[in-house]
Amino acid sequence: MKTYQEMTLAERQAEYAALCRTHQEQKALGLDLNMARGKPGREQLDMVMEMYNIPLTADDFITDGIDARNYGYVAGIPIARRLFADLLGCKPGQVIAGGNSSLEMMFDAVSKAYTHGLLHSEKPWGKLDRVKWICPVPGYDRHFKVTESFGMELLSVPMTETGPDMDRVEQLIRDPEVRGMWNVPKYSNPTGITYSLETIHRLAAMKPAAPDFMLMWDNAYCVHELEGDFVPFPDILSLCAEYGNGDMVYEFASTSKITFPGAGIACGAVSEANVEYFKNLLNIQIISYDKMNQLRHVRYLKDKETTLALMRRHAAILGPKFRAVEDELDRHLAPWGIASWSHPKGGYFVSLDAMPGTARRALELCRDAGVTMTAAGATFPYGVDPQDSNIRIAPSLPPVHELEQAIAILCDCLRMAALEKLGI
Amino acid sequence: MKTYQEMTLAERQAEYAALCRTHQEQKALGLDLNMARGKPGREQLDMVMEMYNIPLTADDFITDGIDARNYGYVAGIPIARRLFADLLGCKPGQVIAGGNSSLEMMFDAVSKAYTHGLLHSEKPWGKLDRVKWICPVPGYDRHFKVTESFGMELLSVPMTETGPDMDRVEQLIRDPEVRGMWNVPKYSNPTGITYSLETIHRLAAMKPAAPDFMLMWDNAYCVHELEGDFVPFPDILSLCAEYGNGDMVYEFASTSKITFPGAGIACGAVSEANVEYFKNLLNIQIISYDKMNQLRHVRYLKDKETTLALMRRHAAILGPKFRAVEDELDRHLAPWGIASWSHPKGGYFVSLDAMPGTARRALELCRDAGVTMTAAGATFPYGVDPQDSNIRIAPSLPPVHELEQAIAILCDCLRMAALEKLGI
Repeated sequence: MKTYQEMTLAERQAEYAALCRTHQEQKALGLDLNMARGKPGREQLDMVMEMYNIPLTADDFITDGIDARNYGYVAGIPIARRLFADLLGCKPGQVIAGGNSSLEMMFDAVSKAYTHGLLHSEKPWGKLDRVKWICPVPGYDRHFKVTESFGMELLSVPMTETGPDMDRVEQLIRDPEVRGMWNVPKYSNPTGITYSLETIHRLAAMKPAAPDFMLMWDNAYCVHELEGDFVPFPDILSLCAEYGNGDMVYEFASTSKITFPGAGIACGAVSEANVEYFKNLLNIQIISYDKMNQLRHVRYLKDKETTLALMRRHAAILGPKFRAVEDELDRHLAPWGIASWSHPKGGYFVSLDAMPGTARRALELCRDAGVTMTAAGATFPYGVDPQDSNIRIAPSLPPVHELEQAIAILCDCLRMAALEKLGI
Repeated sequence: MKTYQEMTLAERQAEYAALCRTHQEQKALGLDLNMARGKPGREQLDMVMEMYNIPLTADDFITDGIDARNYGYVAGIPIARRLFADLLGCKPGQVIAGGNSSLEMMFDAVSKAYTHGLLHSEKPWGKLDRVKWICPVPGYDRHFKVTESFGMELLSVPMTETGPDMDRVEQLIRDPEVRGMWNVPKYSNPTGITYSLETIHRLAAMKPAAPDFMLMWDNAYCVHELEGDFVPFPDILSLCAEYGNGDMVYEFASTSKITFPGAGIACGAVSEANVEYFKNLLNIQIISYDKMNQLRHVRYLKDKETTLALMRRHAAILGPKFRAVEDELDRHLAPWGIASWSHPKGGYFVSLDAMPGTARRALELCRDAGVTMTAAGATFPYGVDPQDSNIRIAPSLPPVHELEQAIAILCDCLRMAALEKLGI
């Protein structure tokens, strides 16, 4: 079988004509398939309903002398701080157990940098002429949107198999206007790669020119293996402290993909000095996060071991979905030599690199056939992929048979877009 | 019996000596009584635990075609928006049902004014030289702290029996640097007064020089009667709209004192245009608030009628506590003519005005005797009461016998401070 590059014009034309007929048939099906977001599927949600089967009396909500039902304790109840410390490998005193959304905690940290300044800020960023921010690409669209919405200048750095291109990062941080960097260090969104030890050490050891540089460490997939055992991962807080950078790092995690998306609990983990600094600011903003939800979670998840057991049950649901996507891609796309894709061992995404200049067109064709994917370009700052190539696939929500259908259509659309690009 | 002003020096000295002896005895008791914050008491929390006795299956979390357990719907589930609209008298489309804290929603709205600007802002407030803000006094300390923390200049306006001094307010808003105003319009914190219809109309009709003026309407006690039937209150959103000021008002409410403090649900209610504006900003910040908690609340509170029935049960617990406070004040303080206090029909506070220049000293004496009250001055911007007179009493948390003990001590301390002021 020839790849598209090897085909003659006539062969490509015949191929395209056949794909167009299939596309017309697909359109006629009136499908409505969505692989746009990393939403857990219903089977996962139903499984976790058991959290509500644990009976809790009034007295059960009193813990460490604190009535979790009443106001107060802005850093969260101690047992919730301990659970997150257990999962992340940091100390309970470094954890602020918060509300339901780690994204909101990240947004809030950036927002506070603008309105009030950070622990080592000379002034609030709102008073600065310009703020620049490092974005490994492809990366998480919601991260990029947060920093974009504050008017920052976003600097793309290529993501490699071992993490962001560190030579480039170390060069950029010499600029004092560069004040932060996004990271999803384990099972990165969307490429699925995990930062190597060397990358992590180089990040922890950075000496940015900006005194209030924010090393954002979104450990969203800290216990989210898709297959096999839990993969240990260094505690970035102690590493940064070892390099004299204790206050530089802002780690985040949540149970959104452990218990319930949007009804889980989130945390920020920072140096003890930063915990004090942020507690003082948070006390102005909120009397307390939802400590009843924190308590309910701790009663269910208990500790790292129990949480990892639950994650294996999630993996048993998610694994087949990821394998279905990879199988379909292997079958319907590999032969034509027009794309490559990731084979993640954890996280929530498959990252596909289409023939340059075809991603946007392929997803337009997908939409016509009733398949919604994350918008082309979304994985890049400002929503612009300079190669127009990267596509993020989120296999978690649809059932396997829908996934197979959707990926088959995606493959056809990628092929059509590639043929159009090559000339037909 | 003589008032302190009528006593001779010798009589005051004898009185003071007797009070000092009592104070020494009180100190020896080693009490630890806290009336600092408007926290519901344990009896109220235990009562509301019945919310968790309503069994909910997986299917129960699917409402209006939305799975409340999954991501999405940043304005909240429709049934939660309808419940708040029912309570506030506005339209469901004007409600953003949020997380657990209305204070956080207020902070967030102000923060967004600084970082992103509001619907009618010329630029983000962070780019302005100066922002001024109107604070009716005495008022809610947490409100004042929010605006103070952003570096605003806070302008005190006296609170009268019918609401803030509107002549003064209408004068202040001619200054384009005056960009907002705090209000707790029903059962105001701490004075307990409810704005008159005339005040409300004058506020709704204001034409501030600032195009993005924020009329903050913290309807914290919208259904929080302490005795008797629910007192209807105008819908500020439609009133503002009638006066062509639809986008000027930001209303807030929560179930923190209906269900659980810190584990309830909160809302913002704004014009439809503002809902759209804020939804676009919120979509950058959070994927969704805790919709499971929203749903659980709606299943329990159902509608306005059911909610009001629950509030009558809260009143049955709170009413006796407020009466105990007023009885103690009548007995131990009234005879000396050194203070006056409010007789609230709703809300969470009794506001006491001590002899000018004695509040701080009285609370210092209270602390010595193991009674913690909200700090003197807290009800004024920057924590400074120019009269050093106002004291906020929060009767909700302690049981009645502790309240009686604490208020008796407060009365003695107020008497000592007054005698010191008058000369002994």
